[in-house]
Amino acid sequence: MNLLEQKIVAEGKVLSDSVLKVDSFLNHQIDPKLMKYIGEEFARLFADAGITKILTIESSGIAPSVMAGLSLGVPVVFARKRKSLTLVDNLYSAKVHSFTKNETNEISVSNSYLSEDDVVFVIDDFLANGQAALGLIDIVKQADATLAGVGIVIEKGFQDGGKLIRDQGIRVESLAIIDSLSAGKVTFKEGTTI
Amino acid sequence: MNLLEQKIVAEGKVLSDSVLKVDSFLNHQIDPKLMKYIGEEFARLFADAGITKILTIESSGIAPSVMAGLSLGVPVVFARKRKSLTLVDNLYSAKVHSFTKNETNEISVSNSYLSEDDVVFVIDDFLANGQAALGLIDIVKQADATLAGVGIVIEKGFQDGGKLIRDQGIRVESLAIIDSLSAGKVTFKEGTTI
Repeated sequence: MNLLEQKIVAEGKVLSDSVLKVDSFLNHQIDPKLMKYIGEEFARLFADAGITKILTIESSGIAPSVMAGLSLGVPVVFARKRKSLTLVDNLYSAKVHSFTKNETNEISVSNSYLSEDDVVFVIDDFLANGQAALGLIDIVKQADATLAGVGIVIEKGFQDGGKLIRDQGIRVESLAIIDSLSAGKVTFKEGTTI
Repeated sequence: MNLLEQKIVAEGKVLSDSVLKVDSFLNHQIDPKLMKYIGEEFARLFADAGITKILTIESSGIAPSVMAGLSLGVPVVFARKRKSLTLVDNLYSAKVHSFTKNETNEISVSNSYLSEDDVVFVIDDFLANGQAALGLIDIVKQADATLAGVGIVIEKGFQDGGKLIRDQGIRVESLAIIDSLSAGKVTFKEGTTI
């Protein structure tokens, strides 16, 4: 098991067969040292991809993305989930449905920070049904930028988001892939240890 | 001028006498290297404060906080602006009005991640009228934790938040203090260069 998988086993809370709560180190409390490890892993995996920019979504995608951006030496752009008064015109946007929160948000990115010259690395904390990642990928397309791939901290391998995105020929690297949350136990997919 | 002030002068956009937009490196696009500098500065200023935890608020507080947490070797907790389905019970909460967005949010922190044993360093991106920082300070009080102080990336020195908090005897360290945004120009308070 890698450091992330060890942390999931030690601190993750299995709330149901489909819900894993990792509020102690990723989604509410953040472990900066673990984020550094995650950022460095993403940077290592995509070292040769010519990345110029990381695109993520607020809020839980920000910490791993900033650490990856530090390692890769590139800026991070985070999509906002709704408009603020100081960020209105010239937006790329996409609709994203969250099954966890049971709501649909419009996510948006200013066109000042993504262009056709960019090679974009999309990062998110979780990949389940893939809605957030697909929204971010759509924004990369709107900018006519090149998509280098998708980096995921924790993928729920038993949901269809990973397959949906990989079937489009997009490279997806997940640092932990969970095969099952049955019986209150986390089982990882074989061969995910890095 | 310190690195942050140089970046503000180079990339900040003065939208009015009271609004400074720093979306190119802090609030939408993030400069990870600058965040590392900011985190290290916060860590240096509060090195002897015995900090056990950093408390911030989503989303723009997260990047500088995670870098400060990495330097200080402590976890970061970010207050959420509304409840999610996987974060409901046992919350500390406070109401925070945002004049920029013209809305009032309830911010909340799980009581699992702040306790009376904690020495808490509150970090936020901007200090203007002080509403967000005061909400976070209120949450520290609800947890019976010790407040080490407040770290701010950019303080609008011409608004009253800084005075409100310092008048309570709370240590506030702002890495850039803006004296005025008149005539489309950023003027820093003397002596803020570090």
